[in-house]
Amino acid sequence: MKAFQDYYGESVSHCYGCGSLNQHGHRIKTTWDGDETLTRFNPEPFHTAVPGFVYGGLIASLIDCHSTGTAAAAMYRAEGRAMDTLPAFRFVTGSLNVSYLKPTPLGVELELRGKVQEIKGRKVVVETTVLANGVATALGTVVAVQMPEDFGTA
Amino acid sequence: MKAFQDYYGESVSHCYGCGSLNQHGHRIKTTWDGDETLTRFNPEPFHTAVPGFVYGGLIASLIDCHSTGTAAAAMYRAEGRAMDTLPAFRFVTGSLNVSYLKPTPLGVELELRGKVQEIKGRKVVVETTVLANGVATALGTVVAVQMPEDFGTA
Repeated sequence: MKAFQDYYGESVSHCYGCGSLNQHGHRIKTTWDGDETLTRFNPEPFHTAVPGFVYGGLIASLIDCHSTGTAAAAMYRAEGRAMDTLPAFRFVTGSLNVSYLKPTPLGVELELRGKVQEIKGRKVVVETTVLANGVATALGTVVAVQMPEDFGTA
Repeated sequence: MKAFQDYYGESVSHCYGCGSLNQHGHRIKTTWDGDETLTRFNPEPFHTAVPGFVYGGLIASLIDCHSTGTAAAAMYRAEGRAMDTLPAFRFVTGSLNVSYLKPTPLGVELELRGKVQEIKGRKVVVETTVLANGVATALGTVVAVQMPEDFGTA
């Protein structure tokens, strides 16, 4: 199954979190899993907070890109459109809230599961849970906003 | 002037965001600047969101470590203790909220400025502003919690 990020155009494929063209970045891949979205990610050994546990900034980064990807996919789905149809839906992060529920162990594959809470105009609210060994360790809420045509020029 | 992070003990110096011993990480350095705290950081060229702009996950990461460092320094200051005195104050992130006000340009030194909003028991609330060319581009609020003795074992 192609991931959401595989549909991103060249101009939005340089993101450190999810751009397939960023050789230094995380290059996460997100897919639908029923009504949820799913990203699996293996942190590197150096992505540490204190030894043995995953750095919270990485967790925030994963939630961010997982959620903006979910927002785009949700908008296509809401409009009954395939993800390779134009015009493309691309989202940026308006706000990112992360609650760290417990330390996230390093050395296991993390699972991020997203749920679309609301679609309202150009905004999509996504709730994303981070799980390690099936246990929720962080909970994120992202307000994703459709990328303006003039992004970065206004 | 020694940075807050220069006082961190070995066990908490492996953090990807602020650990001086993490060769892969950001190794931020934070100091007092009057009643505010200050971190200066130069993102790498590959820390991109879309080309020309800084990745939001990096911004969240910088806010996170800047704020937990600020929390520790604030607690020492509140107790009238020097940062090299024991027992050490070390903080983890309870929650992290970031509002992205506008795109953050890549290629300029970023400035993070923290203000202590509240110290209450083991919690410190820090508000951190990210500035590029003197313009605020993101606003973060971190609830930092004193690291429990049994961190990661409970």
